Amino acid sequence: MDKTPRFGVIGGGSWATAIVKMLCENLDQVNWYMRSVYAIEHIKKQDHNPNYLSSVEFDVNQLNLSNDINETVAASDYIIFAIPSAFLKRELDALTTPLKDKIVFSAIKGIVPETSLIVGEHFNEYFEVPMENIGILTGPCHAEEVALERLSYLTVACQDEKKAEIVAGYLGSDYITCKISDDVIGTEYAAVLKNIYAIAAGIAHGLGYGDNFQSVLMSNAIREMKKFIKKVHKMKRNINDSAYLGDLLVTGYSIFSRNRMFGNMIGKGYTVKSAQMEMSMIAEGYYATESAYKINQNQKSKAKTPIINAVYAILYEGKNPKTVFNKLVDKLD
Amino acid sequence: MDKTPRFGVIGGGSWATAIVKMLCENLDQVNWYMRSVYAIEHIKKQDHNPNYLSSVEFDVNQLNLSNDINETVAASDYIIFAIPSAFLKRELDALTTPLKDKIVFSAIKGIVPETSLIVGEHFNEYFEVPMENIGILTGPCHAEEVALERLSYLTVACQDEKKAEIVAGYLGSDYITCKISDDVIGTEYAAVLKNIYAIAAGIAHGLGYGDNFQSVLMSNAIREMKKFIKKVHKMKRNINDSAYLGDLLVTGYSIFSRNRMFGNMIGKGYTVKSAQMEMSMIAEGYYATESAYKINQNQKSKAKTPIINAVYAILYEGKNPKTVFNKLVDKLD
Repeated sequence: MDKTPRFGVIGGGSWATAIVKMLCENLDQVNWYMRSVYAIEHIKKQDHNPNYLSSVEFDVNQLNLSNDINETVAASDYIIFAIPSAFLKRELDALTTPLKDKIVFSAIKGIVPETSLIVGEHFNEYFEVPMENIGILTGPCHAEEVALERLSYLTVACQDEKKAEIVAGYLGSDYITCKISDDVIGTEYAAVLKNIYAIAAGIAHGLGYGDNFQSVLMSNAIREMKKFIKKVHKMKRNINDSAYLGDLLVTGYSIFSRNRMFGNMIGKGYTVKSAQMEMSMIAEGYYATESAYKINQNQKSKAKTPIINAVYAILYEGKNPKTVFNKLVDKLD
Repeated sequence: MDKTPRFGVIGGGSWATAIVKMLCENLDQVNWYMRSVYAIEHIKKQDHNPNYLSSVEFDVNQLNLSNDINETVAASDYIIFAIPSAFLKRELDALTTPLKDKIVFSAIKGIVPETSLIVGEHFNEYFEVPMENIGILTGPCHAEEVALERLSYLTVACQDEKKAEIVAGYLGSDYITCKISDDVIGTEYAAVLKNIYAIAAGIAHGLGYGDNFQSVLMSNAIREMKKFIKKVHKMKRNINDSAYLGDLLVTGYSIFSRNRMFGNMIGKGYTVKSAQMEMSMIAEGYYATESAYKINQNQKSKAKTPIINAVYAILYEGKNPKTVFNKLVDKLD
């Protein structure tokens, strides 16, 4: 009797590709949905994703590729979503297979724009997935380093720690160390907020602030993140664990981060629109900024979030980055 | 009646030069001791330090340069020491002018090798300077960015906060924001320990670990630092304040950090001796590693410090970096 759970991965980007690679270290079969028929055909013929992490060679016999999300969901017990949050609703609109009996893990680091919910909450509210069947897969982790098999640590969070352990067991390998957490809400918010702070770091860099300021910004960002998350979901957590601080640092210090790059262009004088047009990939933090700002504004007791507020003012209120940062620096310490 | 306190800076390196620059923004006269007669003559003729931060132009009329430490100390009420801790004792051996009535600030980020004391404690124990007259000047701050007048935040710590405020007042400017703290011991240990973690970051980089691991290492380092400092000096502090976390980050992420560079060479296979010979500047963290390790070992209740222990094993017990890090990574999360 085969008790191995069936895993499905939803998404064709770099993070989805990295997750499939991790699972292929431990599973004979992985179900993998992606939108692009071209990419699927390419993988079948050339053993690698043409668009992302193309150095990763797959054994195609391990892959059940499909461009029908229903097929992948139906064939899987554990489903890992790894698509930009901005595209999540569009993909889910095509879903007729019920999710409510599935175990759903989100590797999405964003807030669903249409509902202003973090992804776990979205699945709970709109797809009747019980909270104990919802999990989070979070960094600190650049997909590119997984491709290179460089040692990386993931955090797998689920209220039901047994499910987190199962997922961790199938993701772990020589180069992937998995940690378990029961803070589904907090780790997901951390993953969302860090992208906003990475945009802030990029803006600062673009404006000419240096490494001294960057370290002060990150030191303030982690304190702000702690306050924000405490307001939305109070529980005992060490904000300096890798899933929170580590994830902030790997993004905030990465010159390859899309969010930091986007911020950098804004700091250098691009308009929001022109910066977005220049970038071929979506900067999750752009949407996260609006959602996080509004979530905090709608709290009865708001967290003090000068960095999020500054990024919001620049991205959504058309304020001048230089002027906004001139004021922000006085609020940091 | 002139109530402006007289400031003296001890040291001719980049950090001393940066501090003199900061003081010159606010004071008509700054006393400045450095060992090198050549450098003094060069500054007098060419308006800049020939060896460090040579882009910084001084108005020599503001400087009372001397290569006699007694002259500088005698002429000053507030004395800021900014020399490598390894040379401190040698400089202080020449001192016949009593320090006990002076206010002594340390901008040294190290442990005095001969006494295994942090600098503040050394002045207290060997020079009868009362603790309330001892202060710490700490980052996060690369001297090079002060030279460029890039916005930087300093923390000025003293048990007597009035003295901290006075020093902060004379250091602050358009590009320097000063924060006050009463955690003299904790901020100084943080400044010391961060150099050890920067060596660890360098070793990891030299061994081929990537950005994902670096963020996990830093996330573990700040938790380890918190535990270490709590054991040596328990008080309420937020370890994520800029003086602790910010200082760790600015050093641990800097490819220009001497400590990180030193570690990088070790990771790449240099012996400790050959790495030291290749580097023209002292890596403070080398001495700090031995002192911090021993201080912790001598505690009745030791802090868990896997990172410090790993660096100690590599630098002082001749252990193979690769083997040591293979074991270390299992202790991190």
